[in-house]
Amino acid sequence: MQSPVPFFTHSLTALSKILDKAEAHEAAKKIKPEVIPQLRLIADMLPLWRQVTIATDHAKGASARLAGLDVPSFADSETTLAELKDRIAKTLEFIATIPEAAFEGAEARSITVKAGPRELTFPAAQYYHGYAIPNFYFHMTTCYAILRANGVEIGKTDFLGA
Amino acid sequence: MQSPVPFFTHSLTALSKILDKAEAHEAAKKIKPEVIPQLRLIADMLPLWRQVTIATDHAKGASARLAGLDVPSFADSETTLAELKDRIAKTLEFIATIPEAAFEGAEARSITVKAGPRELTFPAAQYYHGYAIPNFYFHMTTCYAILRANGVEIGKTDFLGA
Repeated sequence: MQSPVPFFTHSLTALSKILDKAEAHEAAKKIKPEVIPQLRLIADMLPLWRQVTIATDHAKGASARLAGLDVPSFADSETTLAELKDRIAKTLEFIATIPEAAFEGAEARSITVKAGPRELTFPAAQYYHGYAIPNFYFHMTTCYAILRANGVEIGKTDFLGA
Repeated sequence: MQSPVPFFTHSLTALSKILDKAEAHEAAKKIKPEVIPQLRLIADMLPLWRQVTIATDHAKGASARLAGLDVPSFADSETTLAELKDRIAKTLEFIATIPEAAFEGAEARSITVKAGPRELTFPAAQYYHGYAIPNFYFHMTTCYAILRANGVEIGKTDFLGA
């Protein structure tokens, strides 16, 4: 199959620039650095910092699993926007190491992931189209909506990285 | 390139089922049929009905353009959840007609789209990774968030169509 890496590279680069704008907003409004990462769109949805870490998890997870590699484990200890940008940078660095050729024949793989207490096993194409990619953009878009709803001046072109 | 159709088929099918749940909520709470399609997540973001029509536009647009076909034009006149589900059904029907083979050599295409007053031209891969797919899931996720924020009982598994 084709490499999924370009989807992740494009949009995580855009997300990092969105977090730059969130940092500028934080500085301009004198907001403490631990506040913005804890913002939520809806009370029973995850806070911004988890939306970012889960987006990066789907990026590195899908890239590694479809290429038959081990998924690198990151600590999930980010508390500031700067640390979240580092998380994105580490993810971009990892996925950039996986060549297009590593995805040849990926269709034949069976992919198992942990989702909370459950283990899910999918044929690779179903994992890709119905799980990894929708999940990645779900968390990307929720990051955007949390910041947008909280007054950070961003628009669709920031989301698209245009 | 590989067909993008499986991404759209999977997630639009999930969105149609989410709209079923929105209809059940509408009936249970005796909400008038024109109300839910006009809900917005944030005052200066588009209402639900436009989020649905734009998601379907990206699905049919990307599928047609990457396959070198004309993009079918739909009227953008939906005012009820039932009409929005019809829009999704028409989109699914159209994209199901495009065979995998139609995307062979799509990488060589140059894609031009109208975005408001602007015309944007991209190499096909950039259109796919940086515009069509992120846009599609942006509007998918915003549909979900509008309904979730307004009390429709949906969760991540509905979004994933799991």
